Amino acid sequence: MTNRKEITAGIIIIGNEVLSGRTKDINTSTLAKWLNSIGIEVKEVRVIPDIEATIIENVNHLRKKFNYIFTTGGIGPTHDDITAESIAKAFNVEYGFHKEAYSILENYYKPGEFNDGRQKMAKMPTSANLILNPTSGAPGFNIGNVFCLPGVPSILQSMIGGLNNVLIGGDPILSITISLRTVESEIAKSITEIQNKNNDVEIGSYPFFRAGKLGVSIVIRSSNKKKLDGCYQQIYKFVEKKGIEIVEEV
Amino acid sequence: MTNRKEITAGIIIIGNEVLSGRTKDINTSTLAKWLNSIGIEVKEVRVIPDIEATIIENVNHLRKKFNYIFTTGGIGPTHDDITAESIAKAFNVEYGFHKEAYSILENYYKPGEFNDGRQKMAKMPTSANLILNPTSGAPGFNIGNVFCLPGVPSILQSMIGGLNNVLIGGDPILSITISLRTVESEIAKSITEIQNKNNDVEIGSYPFFRAGKLGVSIVIRSSNKKKLDGCYQQIYKFVEKKGIEIVEEV
Repeated sequence: MTNRKEITAGIIIIGNEVLSGRTKDINTSTLAKWLNSIGIEVKEVRVIPDIEATIIENVNHLRKKFNYIFTTGGIGPTHDDITAESIAKAFNVEYGFHKEAYSILENYYKPGEFNDGRQKMAKMPTSANLILNPTSGAPGFNIGNVFCLPGVPSILQSMIGGLNNVLIGGDPILSITISLRTVESEIAKSITEIQNKNNDVEIGSYPFFRAGKLGVSIVIRSSNKKKLDGCYQQIYKFVEKKGIEIVEEV
Repeated sequence: MTNRKEITAGIIIIGNEVLSGRTKDINTSTLAKWLNSIGIEVKEVRVIPDIEATIIENVNHLRKKFNYIFTTGGIGPTHDDITAESIAKAFNVEYGFHKEAYSILENYYKPGEFNDGRQKMAKMPTSANLILNPTSGAPGFNIGNVFCLPGVPSILQSMIGGLNNVLIGGDPILSITISLRTVESEIAKSITEIQNKNNDVEIGSYPFFRAGKLGVSIVIRSSNKKKLDGCYQQIYKFVEKKGIEIVEEV
């Protein structure tokens, strides 16, 4: 929408536990907020099962479509952790012990505790760059434009900071949220008119039900602060004119 | 994996608010658990933006790939609600006021309150079947094997029960979760051996951190109760032999 070069990302959540409904994915939200803050927009998320052919197909399709791909899940020590081997096959590169990863894990565990399962976590594309893990030792890895992270949210969260200097983003995407005491259908027409006059700002409208009361959050997003502020002024003016209560502004 | 005919589903989450990280998707979990209970397996989830061409492309690709497709989001009254029109275009059918939907909404609102925004919610493929909404009036709709539901979780949840007699599922997928006081790398080898002996059961291993203590949940899934129970016995035996504490069984 703007003139700036758009930097895009796709996320691939690898895990039967999300597809079965057992686990609610929260890594998408963590990754998206962080990527937004460094000027990278998430354009698509896919949740796929722990099946090698499916992982390869999706990684190879999406890595051509977006600037960056992030995968979560499937890099632990158990039989259902097949992400690293699948990624090696997707890139058609050697899969085996990564020297640096092996050495990190060997030092991380007490002598005698670096067993088969733990050694498996040092197996990945041997040419990959490591993504260090300050929480639990086992690193993620990066090959080409694909970044492979673990599925456990707290561990993933502790690892992404290390990538801030690796990724090349655009201007950060700025946003303002205005929460109103109204219902969508009361403001739909005016918001449409404002959207039509502000092509460089994305306006979203999201109903909410909080503390027993209905409301609507208007979220405006742009990488251009001036245009964002201009759009905000137009919304503020219309809200004031209509006498709609503002519940919260963030 | 089993001999039964597999009935599959895909989910398409339509919404910039999930891609921006602002909203965490919980509809996938609701849909997946419900679909599992009626013997339908979710094979893929995609989160895509509110862009017409993207919606059309994904719907047309996935509806050929799976038995059922569920979309969430984008069927409200505002300018960014474009799911219904996009679906009509994907199926190349007429988009306009759906007589029954119009009449439901006209009756739902007080005289004089059925404004433009609300009338928009009666617009959809004119030949669609309605999915009734006991919470807030505005119906979802079904065309072909595609079922379009709203994005607000509580409303979506109230609507899916009405589909139990419409969808044709297979045998329900049964599961047992055994939560152990151990770490994945300690049990990886034994669980791999058990998985190799139980091809008709899917075994997943998920580390957790609860009340300050580490553990691993072993989730076994199958539509065959006898095979599921057999696999469970093997895991129980190994856990007992190793002296691993069972935290919880569900």
